[in-house]
Order: sequence, then structure tokens, then C-alpha cells
Amino acid sequence: MSDRLRPESESTLAATAGQLLSELRESPPLTHCITNSVVTGFTANVLLALGAAPAMVDIVDEAGMFAGVASGVLINLGTPTPEQRAASLEAAAGAVATGTPWVLDPVAIGALPVRTALANELVASRPTAIRGNASEILALAGLSAGGRGVDATDTTDDAAEASLSLAARHGSVVAVSGPVDLVTDGVRLLRIANGHELLTRVTGGGCALGAVMAAFVGAARSTSADPLTAVASASLVYTIAAERAAVHASGPGTFAVALLDALAAVQPADLVASARVQESAL
Amino acid sequence: MSDRLRPESESTLAATAGQLLSELRESPPLTHCITNSVVTGFTANVLLALGAAPAMVDIVDEAGMFAGVASGVLINLGTPTPEQRAASLEAAAGAVATGTPWVLDPVAIGALPVRTALANELVASRPTAIRGNASEILALAGLSAGGRGVDATDTTDDAAEASLSLAARHGSVVAVSGPVDLVTDGVRLLRIANGHELLTRVTGGGCALGAVMAAFVGAARSTSADPLTAVASASLVYTIAAERAAVHASGPGTFAVALLDALAAVQPADLVASARVQESAL
Amino acid sequence: MSDRLRPESESTLAATAGQLLSELRESPPLTHCITNSVVTGFTANVLLALGAAPAMVDIVDEAGMFAGVASGVLINLGTPTPEQRAASLEAAAGAVATGTPWVLDPVAIGALPVRTALANELVASRPTAIRGNASEILALAGLSAGGRGVDATDTTDDAAEASLSLAARHGSVVAVSGPVDLVTDGVRLLRIANGHELLTRVTGGGCALGAVMAAFVGAARSTSADPLTAVASASLVYTIAAERAAVHASGPGTFAVALLDALAAVQPADLVASARVQESAL
Repeated sequence: MSDRLRPESESTLAATAGQLLSELRESPPLTHCITNSVVTGFTANVLLALGAAPAMVDIVDEAGMFAGVASGVLINLGTPTPEQRAASLEAAAGAVATGTPWVLDPVAIGALPVRTALANELVASRPTAIRGNASEILALAGLSAGGRGVDATDTTDDAAEASLSLAARHGSVVAVSGPVDLVTDGVRLLRIANGHELLTRVTGGGCALGAVMAAFVGAARSTSADPLTAVASASLVYTIAAERAAVHASGPGTFAVALLDALAAVQPADLVASARVQESAL
Repeated sequence: MSDRLRPESESTLAATAGQLLSELRESPPLTHCITNSVVTGFTANVLLALGAAPAMVDIVDEAGMFAGVASGVLINLGTPTPEQRAASLEAAAGAVATGTPWVLDPVAIGALPVRTALANELVASRPTAIRGNASEILALAGLSAGGRGVDATDTTDDAAEASLSLAARHGSVVAVSGPVDLVTDGVRLLRIANGHELLTRVTGGGCALGAVMAAFVGAARSTSADPLTAVASASLVYTIAAERAAVHASGPGTFAVALLDALAAVQPADLVASARVQESAL
Repeated sequence: MSDRLRPESESTLAATAGQLLSELRESPPLTHCITNSVVTGFTANVLLALGAAPAMVDIVDEAGMFAGVASGVLINLGTPTPEQRAASLEAAAGAVATGTPWVLDPVAIGALPVRTALANELVASRPTAIRGNASEILALAGLSAGGRGVDATDTTDDAAEASLSLAARHGSVVAVSGPVDLVTDGVRLLRIANGHELLTRVTGGGCALGAVMAAFVGAARSTSADPLTAVASASLVYTIAAERAAVHASGPGTFAVALLDALAAVQPADLVASARVQESAL
């Protein structure tokens, strides 16, 4: 992979992200989340702060039909009870059948067998996007036994090849979270260098980004933005809000609160001013 | 319905709400909550801040007996797993058998079949109070297919007739949350114009109010206050605390934190000073 | 029990607690939590703020193996669904088989039959530590019908004999939370007088301490600290952080946020400066 920089891509992405953010706030995408019990409240608050409309519908006989009416769906495997596992499969099938874009977050797969099997089954349904840390993306690509729980023990660059391979195999956008976020659709590869270390000190710092991606792919349906742009926009908005929140934080507690305020306050012009994006030709 | 204003009702309600608030803080009502996984933590924190004693007991073979020893019970249908559905029916039966007042919050019913069937079964047991947004109240009254998830797509006034009908049919107090809250027992109808828009940007902003109502109907048992007054008092205390919190908020994150502080700090005199209540003769 | 004070124990414990805190931050212990749905997010945030690595793995066929790779395990019985009950037994067996230290938090046992039976089954596997309020410890020792939910209706001193008896019977360290925390291994008995009343106004104020104990017994494995010292160290760090947080709090909402900041900021020197510890000879 060469590292040819396309200097125009940074301002282009920031401008499009701003348009999607405005679109999202004007017509809040109904964002259907099946997510883990640790981060449900924080995830809903992140979506509400941003301007989206969260709905956590994670039971059998409701999740499938609801995926059909939602704007976007998140399936996060952090605490996959039997009921959630069945609901996740139902929701993925519902999303596929109706064309609702959906995001898979394969939390802590690799060493843990139940969620690994489920992630492998779900990814075969070709999610619109896959978000994880480097260890999870490597595990989903079949290249690693995964991390120890939700910690990434690999770097995002370690997962670059795996993310390209996953993207090509399943027709998905793959986003790898880390100090530099990596987003690829198998054709283009973007690196987003925004964000703040405090995001790793708040539970749901990564999981909520998966929900924001579901909201953005939902909001993008009424625009010409492709899934790569929508997913990268979500990452840009979220990580720039995190930078702005960190200014007001004196630790992880105040940071999480300030992040919600910053997500509600961040404006398209802030994205243009702060974006640090690099595109590599493959 | 005429709109004859009873000017005395505002100060009367505020004074009684203050007495119930003092009673609640002196003898914290054990408030039994079966609620959704998104808002459990926030709901417990709201009750603790206010001065009540929350207990989330939502499993089969415990929920029924616990409803019998609790001061008040909340049954919220936001994420009704099979276990929670069985526990909800057990708790409702336990509350009815022992005379414990209980509150039903039929979250997102209408379009979602599992919770709609459960809500219809529970309401037949004549809850002391029912709290929802306009779309949920219309759906429970059989007058609408409901909203899209937890968003109300109807106004509280759209639900006025439905709330009167529900109240009369089940002997319940019905509370409709919105920019102006509406509370009726089928005979009297109160409108409470306190509150703040930021409550809609925090997950559990409405769900936690249902728990506060359960605490107030519990606290009212040792007083002469009727359920209508107890439910309206809960709404008044909660929405006035929200107004006070908004003064210190710079977004939804700081607002949610300030709301907990305000619930702990609000005093009877604040209610008298800030209440905006109107009573309509039917 | 005499009350002979050992004046050296206070500074000794504070110094060792500081060493364990530094060890924990250098090599974050993977802290496996099976805990209740009310406090999962707050618990994870407490561990992350402190510097530990939380992982909430609470499903069957994952909990057992994960207990084997974790540094420490917490089993909290606050909302024990059937799935969590089975996962708890699996995790305890996994911890015992592999020598992973584990903490049992028997939330609200006594009056509630399902969790009481489970606690009695789990305690027979000889947890490294048991944490509860006085009513829960009395109930686990078979000396009381327990409190009303998560409220302690007994004082820590009421539970002193019960804690010694439990500790001796199961080879466990027993920690009783209250205005003065009591920690014993059946041979030594420490009283820690740090803390703040606002901890009782935040849901998970006690439950998260159980997780911190699991992190500290995990961190202590690479040191010479015994379980009594590790558990008492956890209590000391947590309650001193609470005192520092209370300085910045204007109510329970700001306190919970400040507690997370304080857990991230607290340093070994702060422990030495603030510890209020008393040791009683038995």
C-alpha cells in the first residue's frame, strides 16, 4: 500500500460530514440499537445529544420488523444473551430484506466462543459497516485469536490488511478504532487522526461510535453520500466532539458528560476547522 | 370540555406536592422498579437523589412477593425480555393482591406487538396510574397505532380524550408527558406547564418520571392525598427540578447531572414559587 | 473483641494500598464482572477511571473460561436472571479451578429467595472476598432475614460477629460497607472510617466497590499482599476518592461524576495523608 496523500480529501470529507450532520438534525434517523447492557444508556444519550432518535428494541418478534422501519441498525455483541442473539439474527434478516443499512460491532470476539460464532454468522449477511478495534477486526478476518475482552492489543495499522480483506469479502465498510481511526470500503482507505485518549477511559467510548455510524448511514439514505463517506463522517464528528469535550474535562467523569454536550453543540464549521484526515491509495 | 380555570388549584397542588415531598424524604418509599435496560441506572439515581429507596427486582419468583412489601411499583415495558414479561405479570398480580399502588409505563406500544399485547394484559389489572407520551396513551386506548419507538408523534392535547377514556375504563390516573403534562383520573383534568425541552434529550427523561410517580403514590399511602394528586405532585416536582437544572446546563450531558442535583435540592417552597398548573372542568 | 488500637496499621495499610494502586495502573488487571443491570455502566467506568480493565462477560459458555484468564472476578447478584445465575456458577467454578481470585456481592439477599439460594450455593465455593452491607452479611451468615432491597437496616458493628464467622467458615475476606467499613479475614479486623454519605445517594456506590475489590485482589497476585490487605486497600482508595469528590460536588449528580475524576487522579500520597484506619485485636 502506498501512502500517497490526497490533499483534497480532508476538506471534502469534512464538508460532506457537515452536510450529513445537518441532515441528521433536520430529519432525525430512527436508530435501532441492539447493544450490550454496559453501554445502553450512554449509547442512547450519545444519539440523543447528536440529534438522532435512538430505539433499543432487542427482543425476538420485535427486532426483525423494527429493523424494517428504522433508518439504520446497530448490532453490538458486547453482552449477547440468548434472547439478544436471536434478536440480532432477526434484526439482520429484517435489515437485509428491507434494505435498511446496518452496522455490526463484534465486541471482544476471538477468544470468546459464543459471540465469535454469532459474529461469523452475522457478517455473512454483509453488513453495511463493521466497527471494531484492531484485535476484533483481525479476529473477524480470521487472522488472530482476538484481544482480551474489549481491549485492543493490536494497532490499527496491524489491522489495515485485515480490514481491506474483510471489506472486499463482505462488501462492507470496515472501521477500525484506535488512536488513528481507519475506514475502508476495500477501494479507498481513510485515516482519521482526530480523537482523544480519554475516549478509552469511558465505557462505551467505542460502542457508542458504532451507534453514531448507524445513525449516519441512516441519515445518508436521503443523500448521495456513499457508506464509506457516511461511516467516516460519523467517526469525524464523534472524534472532533471528543477533542472539544476534553478541553473542559478534568478526568474521565467530566469528559463523558462534556462529550454529550459537545455532540449536541458541534457544528459543520467545526469539522472543517479540525479535521485531520488522510487518504491512502491502495 | 370547557376550559374553566380554577385559580386555587395551582397553589393547592403545589402545597400538597411539597407535603408529599417532605413525607417521601422522611420515610423513603421502597420503590420497586421493573424497567428497561437503557434507563435502569438513571432511574435508580433519580429516585435516590429525590430521597426515595429504589429496588430493581425484575426476575420471576421474586418480583411478585417484592411488590407486596414495596411502597409502590413501576412496570416499564421499554425492553421486555421474556423474563421481564413474566416478572411484570407476577409483580402486577402481587401489587393487586396486597393493595400496593403501581404505575404502568407502556413504552413504545402500538407498532411493536410483544409489548403491546403485554400492556393490554397489564392494564386490565387496573394500574393505579399509567404514564406515557401521547402516542402511547392513544395506542393503549385503542385509538392509534402508536409512535415510532419512544418518540411521541402526537401532542398531549391529541391524547386528552383518550386519557379520560382510559382513566374511566380502568379506574387509573393517566398522565401524558409532553411540553405540557396532562394528568387525569377521569373526573378532574390537570395541565402542568413546567418542564424543559432538555428532558427530551436525555434517555430516561420520561421513564424516570414514571418511577417518581411510583414513589409518590407510595409515599401518599400514609397521607390523605388521592392518586391524582400524588401523580400530579410527582410531575410537578420532577419538571420544576428540570427547570432548575437547565439553568446550570450547557447541553444534555450537564443537564442530566444537574437534574440529579436539583432533585436532591428542590424544596416545597420552590414548588409553590414555580408551579404552572391549570385545572379544566370536564 | 478488645479494641486495642495498633497505631502502625494505618500508615502501613495506606502505604501498601498505594503500592497496589501503582501496580494496578502499570499492569491493568483484567477484571471480569458479572453484575446487575442497574450498575453495569457505572461499574465499568469506575474500573476504567481507576486504571483497571473491565470486561462484563455474563453469558453461559463464556463466563467460565473467561474467569480462567481474568485477573479477578466479581459476581454481583443484584438482578440475577436465569442466564446470569448459570453464568455466575460457571464463573465461580472457573475461578476456583484456575485459582483466579473472586469477589461475591450478595445484593439484597435474605428476603428474596432466588438470589439467597444462589448466594448460599456460591459462598460454599469459598470466594476470596465477600462484600455487602450489614444486612446482607448477616443474612449470608444465617443470622438475619436481610434488609429491604439494597438498603442496610443494620449497622456494620451489628455485623462484626457475623463477618468473623463467615470469614472463618469459608476462608474468605469479608467486607461490610457502611459509614465505617469493616474488613476481616477472621484473624485480623480493620475498620476504615473514610468515605462520604453521598456514596449512598448514587446507585452502584457499593456495587462498584465490589468491582474495585476484584481489581485489587487481581493486582495483588503479582505482589506479596494478602487478600485482606488487597480488599482493605480497595476500600481505602475508593472511599478516599469519594471524600475528594465530595469537595467538588453540589449534589449526587455532580458527586458521581467527580468520583470518576477522583478515582483517576488519586495518588499513593493522598492515601497516606487521608487514611483513617483502625485495627482491633480479636
